[in-house]
Amino acid sequence: MIVDTQSVRFPSIALDSGVVLAPVDVAYQTYGSLNADKSNAILILHAFSGDSHAAGIDRETGKPGWWDNMIGPGKGFDTDRYFVLCSNVLSGCRGTTGPSSINPATGCPWAMSFPGVTIADMVRLQKMLVDHLGISRLLAVAGGSMGGMQVLEWAVSHPSSVAAAIPIASTARHSAMQIAFNEVGRQAVMSDPDWCGGNYYGKTLPRRGLAVARMVGHITYMSDESMREKFGRRFRGKDQPGFDFGVDFEVESYLRYRGSQFVDRFDANSYLYITKAMDYFDLAAGYPSLAASLERATAKFLVISFTSDWLYPSYQSLEIVNALRGRNRDVAYCELPSNYGHDAFLVEVGEQTEIVRGFLARVAREVGAA
Amino acid sequence: MIVDTQSVRFPSIALDSGVVLAPVDVAYQTYGSLNADKSNAILILHAFSGDSHAAGIDRETGKPGWWDNMIGPGKGFDTDRYFVLCSNVLSGCRGTTGPSSINPATGCPWAMSFPGVTIADMVRLQKMLVDHLGISRLLAVAGGSMGGMQVLEWAVSHPSSVAAAIPIASTARHSAMQIAFNEVGRQAVMSDPDWCGGNYYGKTLPRRGLAVARMVGHITYMSDESMREKFGRRFRGKDQPGFDFGVDFEVESYLRYRGSQFVDRFDANSYLYITKAMDYFDLAAGYPSLAASLERATAKFLVISFTSDWLYPSYQSLEIVNALRGRNRDVAYCELPSNYGHDAFLVEVGEQTEIVRGFLARVAREVGAA
Repeated sequence: MIVDTQSVRFPSIALDSGVVLAPVDVAYQTYGSLNADKSNAILILHAFSGDSHAAGIDRETGKPGWWDNMIGPGKGFDTDRYFVLCSNVLSGCRGTTGPSSINPATGCPWAMSFPGVTIADMVRLQKMLVDHLGISRLLAVAGGSMGGMQVLEWAVSHPSSVAAAIPIASTARHSAMQIAFNEVGRQAVMSDPDWCGGNYYGKTLPRRGLAVARMVGHITYMSDESMREKFGRRFRGKDQPGFDFGVDFEVESYLRYRGSQFVDRFDANSYLYITKAMDYFDLAAGYPSLAASLERATAKFLVISFTSDWLYPSYQSLEIVNALRGRNRDVAYCELPSNYGHDAFLVEVGEQTEIVRGFLARVAREVGAA
Repeated sequence: MIVDTQSVRFPSIALDSGVVLAPVDVAYQTYGSLNADKSNAILILHAFSGDSHAAGIDRETGKPGWWDNMIGPGKGFDTDRYFVLCSNVLSGCRGTTGPSSINPATGCPWAMSFPGVTIADMVRLQKMLVDHLGISRLLAVAGGSMGGMQVLEWAVSHPSSVAAAIPIASTARHSAMQIAFNEVGRQAVMSDPDWCGGNYYGKTLPRRGLAVARMVGHITYMSDESMREKFGRRFRGKDQPGFDFGVDFEVESYLRYRGSQFVDRFDANSYLYITKAMDYFDLAAGYPSLAASLERATAKFLVISFTSDWLYPSYQSLEIVNALRGRNRDVAYCELPSNYGHDAFLVEVGEQTEIVRGFLARVAREVGAA
């Protein structure tokens, strides 16, 4: 399945901050076919460093999508039955308007003059895209990590537009620890002299700071167990300490490689804006309680978490589940066993496939879609 | 109790790397009185960022020691009964020779020409100090975190010199995750252009890199629970998102403060050398198994861990305990309930005091000391 990235421009979008951003582009990809009554659409919401290329082989890069193991013919999100859609988030750097985009008023990149965004702003732009495609109700919204936050926001902000919601390895509000890890990453970026207050476009990129930020991220995406299994204490290219400060251990080599690789594909300012949007996320803000906010949601929920995920631990998924159950909402919860930590939502395909497939089939039957 | 830091210079020390370092200074403090037969000495081993000022009020700084709540008259390490000793580790920056010390051959700071060190090297220097003080057998060696690694090394390398060993919140070998967090800190330091390959003495210090490294460290010393209790999602000086990249949340403010504060008291190159020593630590290296290495130890053990410590989790203490029990060694194990994460060994005074006091009294009685 060779896929192309499409794009649509909207005249403007009003943001939570009060700022009106104009114009705004959205990059998206689609897989499968929209049926006649447009009832089989599923919106996939990507995590922090993802993009619109969720599945298939990208025509330009030749690479598979970030959730290609879950989306496609006969897969968990079965493109033989469903029309699957994924867009790059607002403030991203992969085709949707963000700090690296040109500000038409100046002819220069927005950089740090780009307005601050929230998860609700990301969802607002996705809703504009879904409306543009003539889809009045999505069969499902689904995503892991930051994608799960968008799922929750969709279910609460646009209840009549969502038949089913699948938040995976996610939370209804960013915790102090989650904010702390993001803040360390931001400080690493902003401490790099090449960051230059965000005005590095066309100059030297803040490679070192962004690489350090990504290294921290990668540790939090794994688990103690998965790192022990994958790296242990194995030395790299030697069998004893080097007593210099080059690479001694396999895990050091892995982190350095991942850090440097990330810099080639991700914009440092997008890193700042998107992590802040995650940190600001609190579904219950403005409501008396989380349950009160989720009372607005009418979708059927499938909530998934993973045992070894310490960045978005199961208790945070359980908070969502308990709040929904307290308001008598239709919710299924699966805590899946895995050693992969937070990465599990990307790699534990087997059980997720069965669970998602069954859930979608039930919802499609109950709402008379597909 | 006003205390002074003392110092002793040795002509040289032979290191694991094969390098002979000459000369070498050790900074140390003592509390309480050595008895006539020198049988009541306890050596306290400090953690990564600690120093020889473990207890009392430092005459120069006016500040209490880092374990003042555990060491003193009537406290867990009761200075009315015991002679307590603590020295700054080799490669440190608080009086003991390290990369910021002057290399007599050049008249300049060693910087990165300082030889690489190991936990065993740190212990070797401590043994020279203990010999210098005329103490042939320590009643106990005790310490948390990296201090616990030194405890284990003491027990295995100098079995006849240690009656009791108290490793707290520690491990017999640094895991992939522990190495990974240290490597991120090192990369943050070494990515700071002001680091200058380590030659920043007398110039601009690599403040930003070292601060980021310390921020990562502080997150790992706390726990999800303790951060939620201490900070939650509280905004600082406002009640909603700022939509700039200043401080929004209390937890951000705390981390930035802790990071900048650390830079004023710690040498960036010492950060590199000491974290590497921790990463190299593997008590079982050169032995068929951990149990085989611990078979050399004849001390009575008290092993302590804390429930919410995810940086040095209880299973790592249990590995030590099980290896000792498998060789029929005298070992008591306490997993103490705490929400404070790895910091617990510094703040959970109540139960630790009772446990340590009782254990020391038993050992003193059994070996006929004190």
